[in-house]
Amino acid sequence: MWFTERQTTSLGLSLKVRETLYRARSEYQEIAVLDTEQYGRMLVLDGMVQTTVSDEFVYHEMISHVPMRTHPHAQDILVIGGGDGGVVRELCRYPNVTSVTLVEIDGDVVEAARRFLPEISLALDDPRVEVRITDGIKFASSVEDSYDIIIIDSTEPMGPAEGLFNEGFYRDIFNALKTDGLVVAQTESPFVNASLINRVFRFINSIFPVCHLYLAPIPTYPSGLWSFTMGSKHYSPLSPAKNFLPKGIKYYTPDVHFSSFSLPVFVQELLSHASENTEGED
Amino acid sequence: MWFTERQTTSLGLSLKVRETLYRARSEYQEIAVLDTEQYGRMLVLDGMVQTTVSDEFVYHEMISHVPMRTHPHAQDILVIGGGDGGVVRELCRYPNVTSVTLVEIDGDVVEAARRFLPEISLALDDPRVEVRITDGIKFASSVEDSYDIIIIDSTEPMGPAEGLFNEGFYRDIFNALKTDGLVVAQTESPFVNASLINRVFRFINSIFPVCHLYLAPIPTYPSGLWSFTMGSKHYSPLSPAKNFLPKGIKYYTPDVHFSSFSLPVFVQELLSHASENTEGED
Repeated sequence: MWFTERQTTSLGLSLKVRETLYRARSEYQEIAVLDTEQYGRMLVLDGMVQTTVSDEFVYHEMISHVPMRTHPHAQDILVIGGGDGGVVRELCRYPNVTSVTLVEIDGDVVEAARRFLPEISLALDDPRVEVRITDGIKFASSVEDSYDIIIIDSTEPMGPAEGLFNEGFYRDIFNALKTDGLVVAQTESPFVNASLINRVFRFINSIFPVCHLYLAPIPTYPSGLWSFTMGSKHYSPLSPAKNFLPKGIKYYTPDVHFSSFSLPVFVQELLSHASENTEGED
Repeated sequence: MWFTERQTTSLGLSLKVRETLYRARSEYQEIAVLDTEQYGRMLVLDGMVQTTVSDEFVYHEMISHVPMRTHPHAQDILVIGGGDGGVVRELCRYPNVTSVTLVEIDGDVVEAARRFLPEISLALDDPRVEVRITDGIKFASSVEDSYDIIIIDSTEPMGPAEGLFNEGFYRDIFNALKTDGLVVAQTESPFVNASLINRVFRFINSIFPVCHLYLAPIPTYPSGLWSFTMGSKHYSPLSPAKNFLPKGIKYYTPDVHFSSFSLPVFVQELLSHASENTEGED
């Protein structure tokens, strides 16, 4: 049996499935956990691959360690989305982190991850972690001056995650951060979602004094190349604090940190003007 | 209509096809040119995507400009494989290059590229270029002390390209290079072909005094992350000559040059010992 994600209207990724471990409809979306031959166990939401046990380390490390090593003394972290627990796991590698709040809209995702993806979700039981099953957009608008780092680990910009790509949400995020806080969001593929990246970069850049895009390869995401956008009130990721580097890391290095901000010409260009390369875009 | 490449026994990439422009069986392989919705016109050999007009710039620039900007005065270049002409196009951007010899085993690939991929093949008519339709392995063993740079732009390590991943071939390449020459080869995906990369890196490293691996994202290749291995008699790509940077480049920058050598932890590890991660490998 094969699972195929239609990554765009004209692009598909297919994975041979050993076994369907879980499939259910939650209040928000269709949730599936499949065991694939190529990448092992895989979480799928509304037909879109979220993470696999073989390649998840790239995404989870790059969305976590780049901000964690940019901020010199991050203690209080908010994660919006990320119900699989992969970001929380990376954050919990830092002994100086005192609180991690995970705000996930769909409790069934957290339960599926606890049950079928223990190597990703294991840190959800860390005593510093609070899991709140609620709407991240509402939550962000209800807090002020509270977090050193906020990580937006959303699904694709449709369905429950649509509001996580809007300017108003980032104004709330700005207010939810402490005076030297910073945010990182996953912002899709430069090959497939050029105009979305351009739009999100422009408004994060208009809200935060420091704004940078960085890249990492994710085999199971459309085109395999993924972008992350950082908005920061004070610290620059290009002169990171030389702080603690956790053990057990498989992708991130201090060199990789800098390299991920080296943007190819076509990515520099898509940031600087509204891109015309929207063919086949979601 | 959809085209699907079985990239491994358990991984597939599917592209919606507007039109089949060409399909024929040459002496060596099945050749097809398809017009896809996502990435435009695409060259397929034996069912494997070689290049598309939308993403070819990454591969062709990274396999060409990294060596061209490592060697301070490259004049005579040999390309083995690469019948589509994309590497030749990038080399011809350098005014100081005096000769480019393209050795392609399959003349029908060159003809298909001339006819259907003119934006890739256009420099094949440059007066500095000589196209030789012959076996690259035999050709390499017949020349000595002749080239500043050799680029191995092969298909995957099966069928006609199998011998291009062998140690004996690289000994001939070493002899075909001038005393300060260097070679770059495409060496597949760290996510999918770990043991092949490990094997090729080991023998290039044993033959050449300088050996480095670098990475670039290629959306239409398995896993989307691709490796290139450089063997050099003298010059290091980590201290490149600050020479001419051609116009018209869409991926490569001097920063990207350095960044491509920043290897993630798992890639460093797969170079340093025989990898056990061979599941699903071709």
